[in-house]
Amino acid sequence: MTQTVSSNPNDEFKGRFRLAQNNYGKSDIRLVRVDRTQPRHVLKDVRVDVALEGDFTAAHVDGDNAGLLATDTMRNTVYALAQSQLTDSVEQFGMTLIRHFRQAGPSIRGGTVQLTEHLWDRMLVHGVQHDHAFTRASGQHTATVSGDGETFSVTSGINELTILKTTRSGWEGFLREQYTTLPETDDRILATVVDVNWEYTPTAVQDEATDYDAIFAGVLDQLQTSFADHYSPSMQYSLYRIGSAVLERFSQISRIHLSFPNRHHILYNLERFGMENSKTSDVQVLHADAEPYGLIEGWVERA
Amino acid sequence: MTQTVSSNPNDEFKGRFRLAQNNYGKSDIRLVRVDRTQPRHVLKDVRVDVALEGDFTAAHVDGDNAGLLATDTMRNTVYALAQSQLTDSVEQFGMTLIRHFRQAGPSIRGGTVQLTEHLWDRMLVHGVQHDHAFTRASGQHTATVSGDGETFSVTSGINELTILKTTRSGWEGFLREQYTTLPETDDRILATVVDVNWEYTPTAVQDEATDYDAIFAGVLDQLQTSFADHYSPSMQYSLYRIGSAVLERFSQISRIHLSFPNRHHILYNLERFGMENSKTSDVQVLHADAEPYGLIEGWVERA
Amino acid sequence: MTQTVSSNPNDEFKGRFRLAQNNYGKSDIRLVRVDRTQPRHVLKDVRVDVALEGDFTAAHVDGDNAGLLATDTMRNTVYALAQSQLTDSVEQFGMTLIRHFRQAGPSIRGGTVQLTEHLWDRMLVHGVQHDHAFTRASGQHTATVSGDGETFSVTSGINELTILKTTRSGWEGFLREQYTTLPETDDRILATVVDVNWEYTPTAVQDEATDYDAIFAGVLDQLQTSFADHYSPSMQYSLYRIGSAVLERFSQISRIHLSFPNRHHILYNLERFGMENSKTSDVQVLHADAEPYGLIEGWVERA
Amino acid sequence: MTQTVSSNPNDEFKGRFRLAQNNYGKSDIRLVRVDRTQPRHVLKDVRVDVALEGDFTAAHVDGDNAGLLATDTMRNTVYALAQSQLTDSVEQFGMTLIRHFRQAGPSIRGGTVQLTEHLWDRMLVHGVQHDHAFTRASGQHTATVSGDGETFSVTSGINELTILKTTRSGWEGFLREQYTTLPETDDRILATVVDVNWEYTPTAVQDEATDYDAIFAGVLDQLQTSFADHYSPSMQYSLYRIGSAVLERFSQISRIHLSFPNRHHILYNLERFGMENSKTSDVQVLHADAEPYGLIEGWVERA
Repeated sequence: MTQTVSSNPNDEFKGRFRLAQNNYGKSDIRLVRVDRTQPRHVLKDVRVDVALEGDFTAAHVDGDNAGLLATDTMRNTVYALAQSQLTDSVEQFGMTLIRHFRQAGPSIRGGTVQLTEHLWDRMLVHGVQHDHAFTRASGQHTATVSGDGETFSVTSGINELTILKTTRSGWEGFLREQYTTLPETDDRILATVVDVNWEYTPTAVQDEATDYDAIFAGVLDQLQTSFADHYSPSMQYSLYRIGSAVLERFSQISRIHLSFPNRHHILYNLERFGMENSKTSDVQVLHADAEPYGLIEGWVERA
Repeated sequence: MTQTVSSNPNDEFKGRFRLAQNNYGKSDIRLVRVDRTQPRHVLKDVRVDVALEGDFTAAHVDGDNAGLLATDTMRNTVYALAQSQLTDSVEQFGMTLIRHFRQAGPSIRGGTVQLTEHLWDRMLVHGVQHDHAFTRASGQHTATVSGDGETFSVTSGINELTILKTTRSGWEGFLREQYTTLPETDDRILATVVDVNWEYTPTAVQDEATDYDAIFAGVLDQLQTSFADHYSPSMQYSLYRIGSAVLERFSQISRIHLSFPNRHHILYNLERFGMENSKTSDVQVLHADAEPYGLIEGWVERA
Repeated sequence: MTQTVSSNPNDEFKGRFRLAQNNYGKSDIRLVRVDRTQPRHVLKDVRVDVALEGDFTAAHVDGDNAGLLATDTMRNTVYALAQSQLTDSVEQFGMTLIRHFRQAGPSIRGGTVQLTEHLWDRMLVHGVQHDHAFTRASGQHTATVSGDGETFSVTSGINELTILKTTRSGWEGFLREQYTTLPETDDRILATVVDVNWEYTPTAVQDEATDYDAIFAGVLDQLQTSFADHYSPSMQYSLYRIGSAVLERFSQISRIHLSFPNRHHILYNLERFGMENSKTSDVQVLHADAEPYGLIEGWVERA
Repeated sequence: MTQTVSSNPNDEFKGRFRLAQNNYGKSDIRLVRVDRTQPRHVLKDVRVDVALEGDFTAAHVDGDNAGLLATDTMRNTVYALAQSQLTDSVEQFGMTLIRHFRQAGPSIRGGTVQLTEHLWDRMLVHGVQHDHAFTRASGQHTATVSGDGETFSVTSGINELTILKTTRSGWEGFLREQYTTLPETDDRILATVVDVNWEYTPTAVQDEATDYDAIFAGVLDQLQTSFADHYSPSMQYSLYRIGSAVLERFSQISRIHLSFPNRHHILYNLERFGMENSKTSDVQVLHADAEPYGLIEGWVERA
């Protein structure tokens, strides 16, 4: 801080105001890794957000940057380590990154790495999966890895996956008071954009054999199966049901958070025009309402 | 215009300034139609934008609304007609809507309807396609239908489909001048977000047997096949190739416009760290650059 | 095209399918220029999209890139020319760019440059405009410049400016038919996100003294004044009124296109709860509806 | 839950999996309130997100909705209460809403209301602020109010405000290691999109005289003043400085969180073309890089 060494403008605040929890890092690092060792190329497409924690008070208060790793360095590191280390799941790459950053300087105590993996399908050409052409799929595999370089917590998720069922959902028997006008129904469309996150047990995180990608695929499968397999009296009911089914299937998961925006589909009022359009109609015409939307969120954990 | 009947503020402009081409309508009508006649439900999810043209000068200049159909009425109409008429492609529904609007009032001479169909896959539950549960797919089927109620032009398209190939693309031998610094390459990633639109011949539009959905599926298939089937010396070359292959396959299409943003993937400079990362590396680490991007656009038509 | 010189896969299409209108270029070039010659710094923040036209058939059909300027070169050029040339309006910089690109190679015949200038206010510190600190303002100044390097057409615009008035707008006397349910009103909120574009006369474009920034500021002022100064019986009426007032004020403008999404504000039904909430209420409670929306568009030109 | 009364599919999970923390509500309620009591209309434009907490286990596990208030009812309530209650700040309206919801049913124990107020300037017509015409301003006033109906916590914020300074910022003396390539600088552009949130002390929240709107305006003023008033050796330094200055100015605030994405502006390499473009250049040409970006976050609190 050459220019201001003779006086520190922040001196006026020292002692009276304190830097508390803080973190900093590089966001939106858009990393693509291609393994072309075999004719069948392997593609990995990941957005990485790094946030480090440690003792950064001198920088904040005194303008002394000696303990700060540049966020540009974090970016370089993500690309450099990806070459040899992004060979497995994004969860494991997250742990690798934190281990590295922990050792980059004494002021760094650990941090959090968020990874968003965009999923690609192999392109179908004449019905055959192509070796090196791909189509971006819906939905994302997310992971949040935190730790001090020795112990980690790992949360994985499914994001931006839109699902819908055209029947076997209702909304009845709810609390009614002065501002309640909504009629009851035992047959409606249920639609949501999935944002589901699950925490791994410490045992699973310590176990190097934990196959995060296989578990991700299994949760994605279970989520869809459990979404479709029952009459849903409420989004809340389906939330508990899906969460429980995932916990039952994977002992490596300690608890799961489900966040379901209720993307309302409202039967359009065609009675005004002498037409029928109701929950019992063979053909239904609905307005997909963008806003406002219900938002149902909760954790399901082992009893 | 009760409040202003005694004087028209626009009188000061009449005769000197003229209303030229104009249109108005309702945009972002979010329509969902479910056919539940059979246990295997049929889902149609369409965004509709209506824009009508006609003689609307009195409204603009004099504040006389007698010739204006309310945009709210257009919305009602879209939902009302969807029940019995949205039984086939969105292209045919677009023609149905224009025919109807043409007759809604003498001032209306025709218009344009844009339709964006969101595609849904049947959900796989234990490997079986579900009857009434769905997952939103990537990409959209778009259509723009214009006409006067008797004659129509129909353009269909594929939108927001992201595709990529990890080899068999290069960029060499281009014009070099004072501001040219880009090195040549004969092996790079090629990635784009497809925005392709094709015009149907008048004959195809008049033919009630034209199967727009089948042609859409065929173009989508051909687009991917032709994207993957050659070494691409430039996005331009692939543009002409894909366009020609579509025209060859479907005689119903008169010409096709392809718009390809070139989503650059740049080999990250790891040489600084003593690592190899080049076009010949087995494992490549790349930065997926969001901006700026090349944009390559052109029409291909029958000679 | 080293790899494919012995055979051109596109040969199968030549003669039967023709490249028609086409263009290519670099989009989303994010350029910032700071003039620090004086203590009061001057900031220019522009997004530039370049699209060139010319004879690019060889590249498309035969894979011969010799006539193609790399889009990376276009980016370099925009930054390089900005230093000495972006000293006035974005409109003039657009013409400068096209003049330059026209001479970059014989295949290039001209093109279109779109410029989006983000506007910044000087930050107010203790009520005084700061010399080098700025706050991003609402709205954008856009320009589209096309030409062959000698003759140009220039269109300027205002974009993403949200305006609203809480009274002096109505919607009555419109066409009613079978699907019309909307009640009439002589007092409603009128809100829109402005997208207005005006074309300069050839004389104005040729005149080096044309002050595009001053005219932009004048149109912005007139737009707001004319939006507020009358009872609006329809968005269409206000469209003609605003367009005419702009044309009257600036002889340099030949015609103007106005595109007004009608951002509906709907009185919420509180009568169900025994409350009054109508167009005559002192206090109104409204739902700002995001979708669908009316979209009113038209050109106003000199008679 | 008429259809499933004879059997509860979730019975298979009861006892083994437990519903933990959960909440639900209505998001994206777009509320506009206009007070037209005087000719000078008063406009309030607020997005409201409601999330209630309580004992909702029966709904999740057994499909018994009797304790659930419909999210549609929450929406009705927001509009209904806005008429008489949204007369002051959004913070106070948030407390009013929670007090109301707390009493809507015995299962509801409290909740969180998030309010995002869009700010509007009076339109200037011939230099005079208009009575009923408005232009949307940059930035948003946010508030998060949580509580059980009796005790509340209130956090307010400034969001989506973009600020920039063209000098008096540097980045030197930072930690260097194997992946560090960034050069040092004592003169760069500093730009960010502000996301700042401050917590009120319990005393301030209990005090009905607390003027949240005045404090918001004061923080906005202080933020800009402190951003501009010093040489910034790092975003971290400015974070502590701004946070401390806000705490010094407003004793009602207990602590403040600042989140600053570092919107990098990179001097474009023009040396390749024989031009000068450096930190000491009178005229600088920069690339406004959208991604990746540094993200600097921290709390400042009273010592």
